Amino acid sequence: MAVWMKAVFLDQLLAASRSNDSLLCVGLDVDPALAPRAVMQRPNWITAFIAGLVEATSDLVCAYKPNLAFFEAQGVDGWMALTRIRELVPRRLPIIGDAKRADVGHTSAAYASCLFEELGFDAATVNPYLGFDSLDPFLQYANKGVLVLCKTSNPGSADFQDLPCQLDDRLEPLYMVVARKVVGWNQVGNCGLVVGATYPDQLKAVRQVAQDLPLLIPGIGAQAGDLEASVRNGVDSAGELAILNVSRQVIYASDGPDWAEATRTQAMALRDQINRFRRP
Amino acid sequence: MAVWMKAVFLDQLLAASRSNDSLLCVGLDVDPALAPRAVMQRPNWITAFIAGLVEATSDLVCAYKPNLAFFEAQGVDGWMALTRIRELVPRRLPIIGDAKRADVGHTSAAYASCLFEELGFDAATVNPYLGFDSLDPFLQYANKGVLVLCKTSNPGSADFQDLPCQLDDRLEPLYMVVARKVVGWNQVGNCGLVVGATYPDQLKAVRQVAQDLPLLIPGIGAQAGDLEASVRNGVDSAGELAILNVSRQVIYASDGPDWAEATRTQAMALRDQINRFRRP
Repeated sequence: MAVWMKAVFLDQLLAASRSNDSLLCVGLDVDPALAPRAVMQRPNWITAFIAGLVEATSDLVCAYKPNLAFFEAQGVDGWMALTRIRELVPRRLPIIGDAKRADVGHTSAAYASCLFEELGFDAATVNPYLGFDSLDPFLQYANKGVLVLCKTSNPGSADFQDLPCQLDDRLEPLYMVVARKVVGWNQVGNCGLVVGATYPDQLKAVRQVAQDLPLLIPGIGAQAGDLEASVRNGVDSAGELAILNVSRQVIYASDGPDWAEATRTQAMALRDQINRFRRP
Repeated sequence: MAVWMKAVFLDQLLAASRSNDSLLCVGLDVDPALAPRAVMQRPNWITAFIAGLVEATSDLVCAYKPNLAFFEAQGVDGWMALTRIRELVPRRLPIIGDAKRADVGHTSAAYASCLFEELGFDAATVNPYLGFDSLDPFLQYANKGVLVLCKTSNPGSADFQDLPCQLDDRLEPLYMVVARKVVGWNQVGNCGLVVGATYPDQLKAVRQVAQDLPLLIPGIGAQAGDLEASVRNGVDSAGELAILNVSRQVIYASDGPDWAEATRTQAMALRDQINRFRRP
C-alpha cells in the first residue's frame, strides 16, 4: 500500500483554515431535486455544479465534503463526477470523503484504496462499530485524515451511542468510549472525530478528551444545530481544529440564475458568523 | 419513494433456498489480484467473471452477495459492473448488496435508493451505529431485506460490540442490544442480522432472541469460522433462514482455465457439507 508522507491532512487543514480565515466546510450533497435548473441543463451537470460551487467559495472554506451517497444515487454518472472532484478543488484545500465506511480488514482496505487513491480524497469519515482492525487499513495512510463517527447529529444517535457502557470499571456513554479509543489509536496524528452540532454538551465532553484532534461538526444549517455553542465547544485551545460543515443551506441558497452569488453570500455570512463566536 | 409489495425478500430467500436445497451464499468479491488470468483478458472482465461464477453456481446457492468495496476500488468500471449484476443473476435468486451503509436520514435515503432502485438489489447490509432513523429509509422498502450488522466476524468486533451496555436495568453486550432492537424494528418482516461464523456461541445467543429473522453468517472459508457450529447455531427451528456466505474459497478456487469447474466443485461441496450439519 502506498503511503505518502507529504501533505499530511492536519497540516493541510490548518493551512487552509488559516489562509482563508475559516472553519467552514461546504458539503457537496448533489441532489437533482434541489439543484438550480440552469445547472441541470448543462452537460455533465454534477461536475458543472461542483465546479461552480468551488469557484464561488474556494477563498471562504477550510475544506469541502462530498457525501458519497448523493453521487452513488446518480449511478455511473455520479461516480464519474466523484472521480473529477479532486481536480476541481484547488490542491491546497482538503477534501473529506464523507463515506462512513468500515468493513472487515481486507474489505476496508478496498474502501480505503478507493477513497484515498482512486478518488484522491485527503480524509474520509468511517464508522467505528466494527472496531480497530476495520479502521486500521485507513489509518495505515499516515498522510490522510480518518474521521471516526462519535456522536452523530441525528435523533437516532441516542439508540446506541448514548448507551452507558462498561469499560475499565467505568460506565460512560458509548460515544465517549469511542472518543477515548480513537485518541489512543491516533499514533501518527491522522485521527479525528465526528460530533453533531445538534449536541453541544456532548461536543464539549468529546473535545475535553480529544484536545488535539480535528472535530468534524455537521448539523448546523438545515439540521438546525446551535452554531454558537458548536463553535465555542468544538474548537481547540487555539480556536482551531473544528470543521463546521454546512451543505444545503449554502449550496441550495438559490435555485435561480443567481445561485453562485447566493452560495457565495451564504458561505461568507456563515464563515464570518463562525469567526465572531470563535474569538471571545 | 417507490415501495413494491411483490417479491418480498424473505419469501424470495426461502424459495431459492428450498428449490436449490441450499443455505450457501456466494460472495462476489471481485479482486484483480486474485481473479483468473483467462478472465482478466476479456473485455469488461468483471462482468464476464460474475457471469461465469453465476452460471457455474446458480443451482447451488440461496443468494449472491456482491461486496461494494471491491467494485468501488475498480472505479467507474467497477460501478458499471455493479449495475449489471441484477441482470446476470436469475430473477428467482436474491442478491444481497453488502454495503454496510448508514447515514443521517435523508442521506441514508440516497443510499437505499442506490442499492434498491439503481442497482436493483433485493437486500442490503447496514450498520446500526447511527440508530433507528438512519435505518428507517431502508426499512421503508417493505419488499427488501435489511440485514443489520450485529456481531461481525473480525477480531476487532470485540472493541465495541462486546462492551457490556446498560439498557432497562440489564447489562449485556452491545451486539445483543442491537439484536433485540432490530427484532423490535421488524414490523413488516424485512429485517435480518449479520453474525460472524467465527463466533458460534454469540450466534446461538442471537438466534435465541431473533427466532424468525434471517441471519447472514459470513466468515466461513477464508476466515476459518467453525462451519458445523455455525450451521447448527444459525438455522431457525425448521433448519432454515441461515445464509452462510463464502467468497474467496469458492470464487478463487482456481486461477487456471478450469476456474469455473473448480468454483462449481467447491460450491457443491460446501452446500452438501452445510446440509449434512443442518439435518441431525
